[in-house]
Amino acid sequence: MTQPVGAYRACMSYAANDSPRPTDSHPMTPDEFRQHAHSVVDYIADYLRDIERFPVNHSVKPGEIRGQLPSHAPEAGESIDAIMADMDRVVLPGILHWQHPRFFGYFPSNSSGASLLGDFLSSGLGVQGMSWSTSPACTEIETLALDWLAELLGLPAHFNSASGGHGGGVIQDTASSATLSVMVAARERATAFASDRHGLHSCEQRLTAYTSVDAHSHVEKDMRICGLGSSNLRLIGVDSQRAMDAQALAAAVAADISGGYTPFMVVPTLGTTSTHAFDPLRAVGEVCQRHSLWMHVDAAHAGIAAICPEFRGMHDGLEYADSYSTNPHKWLGVNFDCTALWVKDRRDLIRSHTTLPEYLRNAATESGAVIDYRDWHVPLGRRFRALKLWFVLRHEGAEGLRARIRRDVALAQEFRGWVVADPRFEITAPAPLSLVCFRLRGSDAANEALLARVQTRGRIFITHTKVDGRFVLRMAVGQTQVQHRHLQEAWTEICACAM
Amino acid sequence: MTQPVGAYRACMSYAANDSPRPTDSHPMTPDEFRQHAHSVVDYIADYLRDIERFPVNHSVKPGEIRGQLPSHAPEAGESIDAIMADMDRVVLPGILHWQHPRFFGYFPSNSSGASLLGDFLSSGLGVQGMSWSTSPACTEIETLALDWLAELLGLPAHFNSASGGHGGGVIQDTASSATLSVMVAARERATAFASDRHGLHSCEQRLTAYTSVDAHSHVEKDMRICGLGSSNLRLIGVDSQRAMDAQALAAAVAADISGGYTPFMVVPTLGTTSTHAFDPLRAVGEVCQRHSLWMHVDAAHAGIAAICPEFRGMHDGLEYADSYSTNPHKWLGVNFDCTALWVKDRRDLIRSHTTLPEYLRNAATESGAVIDYRDWHVPLGRRFRALKLWFVLRHEGAEGLRARIRRDVALAQEFRGWVVADPRFEITAPAPLSLVCFRLRGSDAANEALLARVQTRGRIFITHTKVDGRFVLRMAVGQTQVQHRHLQEAWTEICACAM
Repeated sequence: MTQPVGAYRACMSYAANDSPRPTDSHPMTPDEFRQHAHSVVDYIADYLRDIERFPVNHSVKPGEIRGQLPSHAPEAGESIDAIMADMDRVVLPGILHWQHPRFFGYFPSNSSGASLLGDFLSSGLGVQGMSWSTSPACTEIETLALDWLAELLGLPAHFNSASGGHGGGVIQDTASSATLSVMVAARERATAFASDRHGLHSCEQRLTAYTSVDAHSHVEKDMRICGLGSSNLRLIGVDSQRAMDAQALAAAVAADISGGYTPFMVVPTLGTTSTHAFDPLRAVGEVCQRHSLWMHVDAAHAGIAAICPEFRGMHDGLEYADSYSTNPHKWLGVNFDCTALWVKDRRDLIRSHTTLPEYLRNAATESGAVIDYRDWHVPLGRRFRALKLWFVLRHEGAEGLRARIRRDVALAQEFRGWVVADPRFEITAPAPLSLVCFRLRGSDAANEALLARVQTRGRIFITHTKVDGRFVLRMAVGQTQVQHRHLQEAWTEICACAM
Repeated sequence: MTQPVGAYRACMSYAANDSPRPTDSHPMTPDEFRQHAHSVVDYIADYLRDIERFPVNHSVKPGEIRGQLPSHAPEAGESIDAIMADMDRVVLPGILHWQHPRFFGYFPSNSSGASLLGDFLSSGLGVQGMSWSTSPACTEIETLALDWLAELLGLPAHFNSASGGHGGGVIQDTASSATLSVMVAARERATAFASDRHGLHSCEQRLTAYTSVDAHSHVEKDMRICGLGSSNLRLIGVDSQRAMDAQALAAAVAADISGGYTPFMVVPTLGTTSTHAFDPLRAVGEVCQRHSLWMHVDAAHAGIAAICPEFRGMHDGLEYADSYSTNPHKWLGVNFDCTALWVKDRRDLIRSHTTLPEYLRNAATESGAVIDYRDWHVPLGRRFRALKLWFVLRHEGAEGLRARIRRDVALAQEFRGWVVADPRFEITAPAPLSLVCFRLRGSDAANEALLARVQTRGRIFITHTKVDGRFVLRMAVGQTQVQHRHLQEAWTEICACAM
């Protein structure tokens, strides 16, 4: 063998001489882990049991957390006790308590005991699900759990991997990533895979996509990431219910075709972030079908409600969709991250994401009989995230999950009634599910001041948006431990801060 | 308020009538969680303690896992005991045991007790770190832990957030995602943000990137995702050590410029996947500097070794790098996922990923005094992944981590000596760290048969690659519980299978 050269020689110095010798390494033994993990479990259980003792919000100033910690890593190891002491001293005062039953901000991001157990097991087993062969249970339980969930949500059969077609589901980290994956697949379908090979600058098509003015910002971000550019995303106007105007969509598509553009994708939303508006899938889908556009339905938060048949009306027209995404980590009690994405035909998705270097080749992949989920998204490595979803679906059962959604909707709608009944306030969006959008009748400044008082007092946490340029308060119900009294406390607090 | 219409009316049906009523939902209480989580901790600790009782590899046939499970989600909830019984019955026989001390495949993907504790706490607290304000500790501990790690690895000061420049680190899920992020930033720097706004098809530049023939496949995948096309990634040849040929790189860049292309990025590797080859950063960096190319260093696996000064020679020339990435989830005992990415100047990265819709606006963000990590990558939502890294850095301490790396290198190099001493075998790559690349002297078929026998017997697990078209066996050392006897057992097994 030839002698190593350059940088590589320097790397060889350890092997090439005898100093320094390895000292004993003492990572924690399984039994030491057992002891500490029992303490950590008690810490978490105590936290969740006693969480109402904390103000929901923090009052941290920028740099304050870092300022309490050393500037350099320790040379010698520290005890777990010392680190846990900093959990109390530094970490807990430095977080917004998302699992607090008086947290009504953004979206619930709720969790549950069953989910945590599944997540702990995923971490503890430490398997990699990049290919079927690198842990078949990781892949097959994911496919199965997403088939179960597709059925619970009443999705069209073509999204189910067992339906005999080419459909199926995959778990990704967030809706941002899920939309990116299908946007890339749609881009390649529209360019006959020319951009995949030669780049977009070699393509004659100038691709355009469509979503509503109220769509989540990640749709624009994904357009930028995948090289299509923010200006080629058309933001379609909405009707009085903040739902996408399908006629305006049809007109925009026609205008783009006339203008020499190539429309390729539409992203309707079920439950917009600001106001939980529902785009009309059937009318949008007809436009998509007419022009062979990929329809991706972003149902990140509200889509979960479809496990209850009485809320499934939003899915009318879903048979037109090429893909659909919703977030069990938002409202199904599965702790973050767990975004479910289904596609009607996985072949374009896989073709636009696949790589098969020699070091990943294996007999199962070559056989074509298995799913290799690494080809369904950007990351290669994968956690066993299906375990937490599978634990929740099994432990809570369909009826338990429906009960939870019905509880949250009932609580939110009761709160909505209190707002309606108070002449100081007005409701600003229909929001039929678990989100209430409201404001003080009066100026934006008055509402901003109200929100600032609420956040500073920290007894509840709510967030805001703007609708038609007006400042609006958002109250999102769905924390795992939320009860009727927490809604009453929230209303009392909001009224107190409105004084 | 006007009446709802269309799909939205259907969503209102619950609020509009009285059936079905919500039934009681009974998610697990914190004390029920405590009880089950203690059992799960014992399950994990027993698994890790007794892991050697399992064959490393599985013998699952496609569909076999799914076939043992019901086709539909249960209507009524099941007990945790029932689900845990399926962990034993279905899951454990269906996984490759990545944490097994006789697992020598792919890369170690090692874990540790301290990491699991931090990960459990992240799951238990259930906070979202999308913005600084949504949990300041999540952001500030991440920035700090990556500053600590940058210092431990001896990275240039400009990657440290506290250096006074614009540098800093972020945790992502995988190297694939990290490279994508900086590729998008580099793409936008090269097009003066024209592609961000108007799309690549509007740009005159035809962008080209460069990596070696032995680079990880994700570099090509990322080129495709971000719209640049696989054919615009130039795969540069390697020298006898499988290191990128910097002269060939310079020639390729010059040829592309002559040909009307715009070179924009080079991705050298420290520790290639196949053979742990080290590209010469200084020579590559000089080419990058001459042509203002973004240099991203992919040090996914081997970069971790730089915590030991004696292995830091690979970093010679790192001052030329715009970004650097390594995976604590590969070899630092931080359980997956935890990819560390540092950038010299975060401004292009942020500008190419930022979105600020009204519903995410907050005073801290507006002040410009904080980091909002959602603008450093594709996903919006973020776990508190810094906790597991912080726990490992603190509990093991710099000296403990160095001892672990030195142990693994010493074990691998001793194994290498056994191969060298056996005339049946040959070493096929220099691989000075924890990876040994070797083969039976003879045909590819003989080596493929050897690997097949090893995998089927399941006593150890190794993988393969191809080098110069020849089938090569890879032995990657680094499992947390690996000891000298496991290497001896592996060598005995390989020799037995070579008979």
